[in-house]
Amino acid sequence: MILSKRRLAHIVFASNDRASKTFDLVLLWLIFGSIIVAILDSVGHLHDKYGDVFFVLELAFTFLFTLEYILRVWLTSKTWKYVISFYGIVDLLAILPVYLSFFVVNSHLLSVIRALRLLRVIRILKLGRYLVEAEFLSESLKASAAKIQIFLFSVLTLVLIMGTLMFVVEGPENGFTSIPVGMYWAIVTLTTVGFGDITPNTPVGQLLASLIMLMGYAIIAVPTGIVSSEMAKRRNTEDHYKTHRSCTHCGFDNLESGDSFCRKCGEPVNSRG
Amino acid sequence: MILSKRRLAHIVFASNDRASKTFDLVLLWLIFGSIIVAILDSVGHLHDKYGDVFFVLELAFTFLFTLEYILRVWLTSKTWKYVISFYGIVDLLAILPVYLSFFVVNSHLLSVIRALRLLRVIRILKLGRYLVEAEFLSESLKASAAKIQIFLFSVLTLVLIMGTLMFVVEGPENGFTSIPVGMYWAIVTLTTVGFGDITPNTPVGQLLASLIMLMGYAIIAVPTGIVSSEMAKRRNTEDHYKTHRSCTHCGFDNLESGDSFCRKCGEPVNSRG
Amino acid sequence: MILSKRRLAHIVFASNDRASKTFDLVLLWLIFGSIIVAILDSVGHLHDKYGDVFFVLELAFTFLFTLEYILRVWLTSKTWKYVISFYGIVDLLAILPVYLSFFVVNSHLLSVIRALRLLRVIRILKLGRYLVEAEFLSESLKASAAKIQIFLFSVLTLVLIMGTLMFVVEGPENGFTSIPVGMYWAIVTLTTVGFGDITPNTPVGQLLASLIMLMGYAIIAVPTGIVSSEMAKRRNTEDHYKTHRSCTHCGFDNLESGDSFCRKCGEPVNSRG
Amino acid sequence: MILSKRRLAHIVFASNDRASKTFDLVLLWLIFGSIIVAILDSVGHLHDKYGDVFFVLELAFTFLFTLEYILRVWLTSKTWKYVISFYGIVDLLAILPVYLSFFVVNSHLLSVIRALRLLRVIRILKLGRYLVEAEFLSESLKASAAKIQIFLFSVLTLVLIMGTLMFVVEGPENGFTSIPVGMYWAIVTLTTVGFGDITPNTPVGQLLASLIMLMGYAIIAVPTGIVSSEMAKRRNTEDHYKTHRSCTHCGFDNLESGDSFCRKCGEPVNSRG
Repeated sequence: MILSKRRLAHIVFASNDRASKTFDLVLLWLIFGSIIVAILDSVGHLHDKYGDVFFVLELAFTFLFTLEYILRVWLTSKTWKYVISFYGIVDLLAILPVYLSFFVVNSHLLSVIRALRLLRVIRILKLGRYLVEAEFLSESLKASAAKIQIFLFSVLTLVLIMGTLMFVVEGPENGFTSIPVGMYWAIVTLTTVGFGDITPNTPVGQLLASLIMLMGYAIIAVPTGIVSSEMAKRRNTEDHYKTHRSCTHCGFDNLESGDSFCRKCGEPVNSRG
Repeated sequence: MILSKRRLAHIVFASNDRASKTFDLVLLWLIFGSIIVAILDSVGHLHDKYGDVFFVLELAFTFLFTLEYILRVWLTSKTWKYVISFYGIVDLLAILPVYLSFFVVNSHLLSVIRALRLLRVIRILKLGRYLVEAEFLSESLKASAAKIQIFLFSVLTLVLIMGTLMFVVEGPENGFTSIPVGMYWAIVTLTTVGFGDITPNTPVGQLLASLIMLMGYAIIAVPTGIVSSEMAKRRNTEDHYKTHRSCTHCGFDNLESGDSFCRKCGEPVNSRG
Repeated sequence: MILSKRRLAHIVFASNDRASKTFDLVLLWLIFGSIIVAILDSVGHLHDKYGDVFFVLELAFTFLFTLEYILRVWLTSKTWKYVISFYGIVDLLAILPVYLSFFVVNSHLLSVIRALRLLRVIRILKLGRYLVEAEFLSESLKASAAKIQIFLFSVLTLVLIMGTLMFVVEGPENGFTSIPVGMYWAIVTLTTVGFGDITPNTPVGQLLASLIMLMGYAIIAVPTGIVSSEMAKRRNTEDHYKTHRSCTHCGFDNLESGDSFCRKCGEPVNSRG
Repeated sequence: MILSKRRLAHIVFASNDRASKTFDLVLLWLIFGSIIVAILDSVGHLHDKYGDVFFVLELAFTFLFTLEYILRVWLTSKTWKYVISFYGIVDLLAILPVYLSFFVVNSHLLSVIRALRLLRVIRILKLGRYLVEAEFLSESLKASAAKIQIFLFSVLTLVLIMGTLMFVVEGPENGFTSIPVGMYWAIVTLTTVGFGDITPNTPVGQLLASLIMLMGYAIIAVPTGIVSSEMAKRRNTEDHYKTHRSCTHCGFDNLESGDSFCRKCGEPVNSRG
């Protein structure tokens, strides 16, 4: 049973018949399995016990993902476009660290590469191919991107000034050892995360911290407002297209419920068109 | 005074006359009483003092809830459907652990079962039967469920990658002992809970943590936006159907509740058109 | 210069001429001064230094507020209604603890009363009389009250079950000493406060905690959605009254921009009425 | 090549030809460079190594910003108006602390001034000149300012009463050493930051804390609601003015951008009506 290149390409890239659906399903399970092995291998006492099993499994996964990468590069008509595409880079990053750990002998570099091997969890992004409903969310975020950028810039300005003030007021003896640490603390506080690893101890510092927290409380409303109003608008547009009628004369499909004449051709509209 | 089976079923399942309302009220107080006993019994010094009283009370509550369960199974016309329904399972789980603790002799298993007995607080869910106004909330959540699922998947992807990165950057010496612990930390941070039991100590780790927090701050807006716009739409639809009527003369269908004359043709409107 | 009772009542209750406005202003400063003294007196090293000054000032404030209370009781035409009204009770609570500390000799009770004296900060609520713009907020909250109640009940159910589960899973050795403590932890976590005084240490506990946090992240959207949609509706109603025109024939003031005939009297509407 | 005063003023204040754009770009890089030097200089081990380099760089930056300040004062036609404007004060504050540290001899004062020198990070506010898109955000916040003020006043009342209650209930032995500290804790808790440096240890204190947290959870919705509804309204108004036109024949003023015929009278619509 020898497959033609065209048939193989169909199995790999499409998902509308039994063979291509099976390919997708197998890939899905491979991704999940590979990630679970990576996660379990990072747990100390499991690594001590089953480290060898995990290593063999990881080699197998890497071999299969390499096969997939080669297939995709070979089968696609636009090889270069795939290689530099988002999923092309993800597919490469998912196998590269494992191979690097074989070819590097320097022991210090090796430990860095070993750490990088953990980044094969990036394979989760391969799942993005199977998400189609996510567009609503990403479009809402994209449409709000400009406003969110300005918002983040304002937040960072506040963080810089507040982090510096806290460094001046509290000083290294209370954990604020430098402006970057002060800025880290300001972000922790302004986002209401509040780890508590660094906390103000002087009355003036606590007053300043209270101000930052109340500000954070007030401005947390801003990104929510941006996304909410964006989504509400998007939904209205959707509803608009769902409920509107078409003109029986010219087919214009954007009539509203109160229209007596078609907005496009000027012909009278039937009451229940 | 012997009750017919039909009368008994009415008392148990309906709540429109004195007897059935009394049944509901007694059950309500039994549920509250049982939960309060379970809570108090868990407090060390109260258990030492009143442990025996709590044990007797618990036996009494369990006996009464068993009686209720038997009644419901016997009286309903669709026994099997009730047993596998949500409230059927809750009613069973509310009594099962107590009985299991009698029949198990193995001492290790017994301590597990004793712990499970605490789960009788699940009886609180029996109260769900008396909530009718909760529908608005649960429907809004249900309608947004698909979007919230995609949102949670995106959050988990972020959590996996960030948890792995922090494990690589900070390592076991700063408390990030494995990828699962790193993911736990990422969830604690992204949701802005911020316990502070594990915190980044290296500059690179603090920079990464700052990025996660600002991301959390920006994407906290997304579920709020989803539910807000869903609720706003639901409310608009409700208002529309509550207040709008049609003109009997020209059919204009956008009359409001206070209109005496049609806004389009000027004819008088019937008070209940 | 002897004031009539009517004139005095006008000064105390109204605020539309010079004398009554001065009375309000003096009262405002007395409230702020009294609260600042109470706050400063609670700081250890300030109490050691200026304790006597604070005590004399507090006696003066109490005397003046007593005078105000007696005036209000004497001058109002509906004495009993004032005494049991919200502000009547606040006015009484603002002076009572100070007097109680004089008449109580029992030393143990005395220390309790001394603590209660701090509650004179409740005087801040007297300021409520001067807030008129707050109605928008309180009405929005009141209109959403039923939904917020159901929401809080759902949250408490979740808190009860999660608190019990964490008590069973983590146990007293990890700080979860009883179900109430577990519930306290669940509230701290679900509201994303996250003190970090009690944290899960077992893998199962951390998994459960992650679930609670993601739930908290998802359901934080619900109260926001409720209040947002309530406010949006309220604002629309306001806008409605601002932008609409009146009928030139009957004066009906709720015409919308597209109406050709008055909805109340049926007369034709001028295009720019 | 001598520049006229008018040409120089154009370069400094405008940004529409090559010279003035270059001036803006150089200034932008100077601001970023100066802030990065200030941040790096605050890190202990970098200060020890490169302290001298940072000092020389800082002198150079200060000299250039002084030149800029003198140019702006000299070139503007309304000198006084510029000096007391927001950016005039920011420009002055950005250079003043460095000069003060030269002219002060008193060693104690000097250390204070040295700390103030760090406040040159305020130069980041100079960037505000180049933000034009930020108006949408600041207008939304301004329009909601009155409501946010009342909201903050309500929050502060709650903070005062809760802080006092916690001071009375928990007392200094649990970290609540005074009312101001109690209020600081109440703000940390109500804003869901939750550092965990001060936590309630008594059952009554934990119950009170739970109440505050649930309140914070419920009222966090209020500022979000205010800003969301404000933004939604602003967007609607914008959309309306962008897209709607009037019919030149019958005056119907609700035409949308794509309409070729009036929806009310059926007459053709002019392309730019």
